[in-house]
Amino acid sequence: MGDFSGHVLPGTLFFVIGLWWSIKHILKHVCRQQKRSSSLITKKFFLRAEIVEGIVITGVVLVGITGLYLVLGKRNQLSEKESQLVLILYWHHFVMYVFFAMLGGTKILCFTIRSLPVSLVKLMLTNACFVDAFIFHNHTHGRTLVDTFGHQLLSFAIFLAGLVAFIEFFTKSNVVLALLRSSLVMLHGMWFCQVAFVLFPKNRDHAWNLSDHSNVLFLTVIFCLYYALTYVIIGINYALVTWLVNWRLSKLCTSETQLLKNLEQQEESEDEM
Amino acid sequence: MGDFSGHVLPGTLFFVIGLWWSIKHILKHVCRQQKRSSSLITKKFFLRAEIVEGIVITGVVLVGITGLYLVLGKRNQLSEKESQLVLILYWHHFVMYVFFAMLGGTKILCFTIRSLPVSLVKLMLTNACFVDAFIFHNHTHGRTLVDTFGHQLLSFAIFLAGLVAFIEFFTKSNVVLALLRSSLVMLHGMWFCQVAFVLFPKNRDHAWNLSDHSNVLFLTVIFCLYYALTYVIIGINYALVTWLVNWRLSKLCTSETQLLKNLEQQEESEDEM
Amino acid sequence: MGDFSGHVLPGTLFFVIGLWWSIKHILKHVCRQQKRSSSLITKKFFLRAEIVEGIVITGVVLVGITGLYLVLGKRNQLSEKESQLVLILYWHHFVMYVFFAMLGGTKILCFTIRSLPVSLVKLMLTNACFVDAFIFHNHTHGRTLVDTFGHQLLSFAIFLAGLVAFIEFFTKSNVVLALLRSSLVMLHGMWFCQVAFVLFPKNRDHAWNLSDHSNVLFLTVIFCLYYALTYVIIGINYALVTWLVNWRLSKLCTSETQLLKNLEQQEESEDEM
Amino acid sequence: MGDFSGHVLPGTLFFVIGLWWSIKHILKHVCRQQKRSSSLITKKFFLRAEIVEGIVITGVVLVGITGLYLVLGKRNQLSEKESQLVLILYWHHFVMYVFFAMLGGTKILCFTIRSLPVSLVKLMLTNACFVDAFIFHNHTHGRTLVDTFGHQLLSFAIFLAGLVAFIEFFTKSNVVLALLRSSLVMLHGMWFCQVAFVLFPKNRDHAWNLSDHSNVLFLTVIFCLYYALTYVIIGINYALVTWLVNWRLSKLCTSETQLLKNLEQQEESEDEM
Repeated sequence: MGDFSGHVLPGTLFFVIGLWWSIKHILKHVCRQQKRSSSLITKKFFLRAEIVEGIVITGVVLVGITGLYLVLGKRNQLSEKESQLVLILYWHHFVMYVFFAMLGGTKILCFTIRSLPVSLVKLMLTNACFVDAFIFHNHTHGRTLVDTFGHQLLSFAIFLAGLVAFIEFFTKSNVVLALLRSSLVMLHGMWFCQVAFVLFPKNRDHAWNLSDHSNVLFLTVIFCLYYALTYVIIGINYALVTWLVNWRLSKLCTSETQLLKNLEQQEESEDEM
Repeated sequence: MGDFSGHVLPGTLFFVIGLWWSIKHILKHVCRQQKRSSSLITKKFFLRAEIVEGIVITGVVLVGITGLYLVLGKRNQLSEKESQLVLILYWHHFVMYVFFAMLGGTKILCFTIRSLPVSLVKLMLTNACFVDAFIFHNHTHGRTLVDTFGHQLLSFAIFLAGLVAFIEFFTKSNVVLALLRSSLVMLHGMWFCQVAFVLFPKNRDHAWNLSDHSNVLFLTVIFCLYYALTYVIIGINYALVTWLVNWRLSKLCTSETQLLKNLEQQEESEDEM
Repeated sequence: MGDFSGHVLPGTLFFVIGLWWSIKHILKHVCRQQKRSSSLITKKFFLRAEIVEGIVITGVVLVGITGLYLVLGKRNQLSEKESQLVLILYWHHFVMYVFFAMLGGTKILCFTIRSLPVSLVKLMLTNACFVDAFIFHNHTHGRTLVDTFGHQLLSFAIFLAGLVAFIEFFTKSNVVLALLRSSLVMLHGMWFCQVAFVLFPKNRDHAWNLSDHSNVLFLTVIFCLYYALTYVIIGINYALVTWLVNWRLSKLCTSETQLLKNLEQQEESEDEM
Repeated sequence: MGDFSGHVLPGTLFFVIGLWWSIKHILKHVCRQQKRSSSLITKKFFLRAEIVEGIVITGVVLVGITGLYLVLGKRNQLSEKESQLVLILYWHHFVMYVFFAMLGGTKILCFTIRSLPVSLVKLMLTNACFVDAFIFHNHTHGRTLVDTFGHQLLSFAIFLAGLVAFIEFFTKSNVVLALLRSSLVMLHGMWFCQVAFVLFPKNRDHAWNLSDHSNVLFLTVIFCLYYALTYVIIGINYALVTWLVNWRLSKLCTSETQLLKNLEQQEESEDEM
């Protein structure tokens, strides 16, 4: 929770989710463009991917709640006032986990039960992001200047991700919007890690001055550069996925051609006989 | 007004409205999916439900305004300054009632007179929600920290409900959006009750410290958990309504089949004769 | 400018514009529903109405700018500091007039030259409203509490009107949205008059206490009641316009029937001859 | 950077981009209306224009970054504290350049590689504008009142431009929206120049009082007047482009007619022979 690993772990998870989403949506886009690719990746594959995604999210959340519970046990050593604050922060994290668990659960339900509207998943994603942003927004009381600013940017990134998810709710599968959402979730994850390094430096000698305003100005720059970095990552992803699909398709074609040739040779040999 | 029942009563009303809306929209969604259900629930049923809803809202509002008038009579015992403030708060509540009365009236008119555009109802709902949020936003002057925060969240929930109603204005009958609106109205109702328990505790020994900031952090958590709860309620509603419609349909089929069998038996007996 | 008539005059103008818009859009809506009405009110009528509207707006603005110029002449009696402030306020009003003149000019051009896109008018309306709101927002420096609040609500009403005009830009002639815009412009006009009565009371004995916060709470109520009033006005308009169109149509039918009868009689008499 | 030319240069660039966009979109609009114009300006022309635009933007950005690097070299003369601040401001400008470079790069890629979605360009434009606004918003720490206000308006103009670009992302090539975006970018450019003249006056005797609030009120007026000016520029552009296209078309027709006449004469002379 309030330590280095408590910020790096969720950050890594958010980054991985964002990365996976960017790959998934690029793959979908490439498959839609190349009609032949349906022989490689079927609709069933994407359906199963969604269900597995839901199961993984729910699983991670359950592990996270268990971890929180264990952290909570250690607070006996603290004073009453501090113990109370830790309890409240525990609840803050618990609420976020609940909404992501609801997202996971909805994903599993919506892609297995047909009568449920699929757009419910988008709504739950929006809810999870907005509640996340709302909690982080009310999470910064009594902190130092830089600490507050770092958490506000966390709130800002996930709020924007929620906003894009809400807009996606109304538009039919737009790849660019989906990539925008992925990039914002990746940014949220990266920023979690950056905040961890700023607030809990490994080497105390190079610790940040948490009340210097020029550090706020500098964090603004880093935030934007991370955002630029997400687009570089998405660009590389795009190039890789396109190349991979084309390579597999060409291989498939070769084997198909060979198959046809074999068939012809057989026919020829039969003719000869 | 400024007492326990003055917050619990509107809270209960908002919760009931939200619950009824969630049931109505789930019923509509299930009926749209199962074509055969038209034998159970006709379009006329929904039309009548809307008109009854309008009448009930208007009725409740009239009762509310009468109640306000009676409360206003008691202010003779107060000092001039306090009496003036009570009068202003009276007007605040009166304005909210006026807009909900307009919503009720518009509902009755739009579903009885055909030439009126039905989307007017959505606009009036948006207006009622936004005016409600606007009044609550300007309602918090000179209050304690926790009191102000509680009323701001009230304003926030109903503002979001108004925003969703405004978006619904542009989209054609989307069940997920309607459920989102229902959940936000339910949240508004629940939060009314929660605020009542926080500000006017029954047991003075367990009263909340209204100027402690950690209570604000804790209320944030409760607000989000209530929001999660509304989705649990909607989920249970969905399961119940689906099961009920299917059960009634299967019963209907059985009776129809029996009717057919009876007819066949009669025919057979007629043949035998 | 900074006196009673300087607030009542623009208020009356805004109210009249809002009222005219509500009548125009209701008339359009009624004509669209009753196909026969095309004999009464043709498309050419609405086209001419738009051009006349543009000319009237431009005319009023030119009169307004001339009036401002005359007011400006009187500032010689003031001290240098006050004179400078009056000059700046003059410019504030001048800018608003410029944008409304642009709206009028665009209206004339777009409805006379065919190649120009008609949506340009909506954009100019949005611009005029937003610039108005922007100016009012930066107009409140160094004023008393109630004065500032009154001008903020002015800014708020016209900002919302601009927002609705911007949304109308994307949707095809929606009567409810147009009525919403009309009501907000009427509200803006009414509030101008209310602010005039609050800030420059005719009877000094009943002057408002401009630094009492309870007056802010009370103005909130009045603002909302005025908003409710605009809907009552629109409702009466709707009833009147519908009744008038139907009455004229029935009269027309009677005369047409009589005409037919006369024709028949003539034919009969001709036959008889 | 923090001097006269450091504000005038980017201002001129933004103004030129806005002006070019307004010409481009007016040309597109005129060509869409006059079917015959396809003989003058082909689709290939617009495609090439987009690619050239991308190359120019990328080029300018690279020159800008080089310029920044040279400025950075001079900071050895400053104290450590000031040097650090200059370094941060350097990074601020660097980030903006990075996003505009990404816009240029995306433009080149999207209009040369067909499989990439073209809407990616709009997204990158939105990103560049929003990041620009975000940086300017966090750029005003510890400045004087007027300085802060000037930079906030810079942020405001480019934020609005980004918002319009984001809305354009969802709507199909709307000329009015594109002109709105152009006008806001032009406004951003003009305001850059105005800020340069306010903050770094050539004649120290006529320097602005940067802490006088009446200057804020006056800058509001200038900002709005510049906005009005952009529409005058767009109007003149529209008239010029329409006249030019018509003149070229009429000339083309004359030459075509002459060609036909010549052909006829030749035929006639052939007949005579």
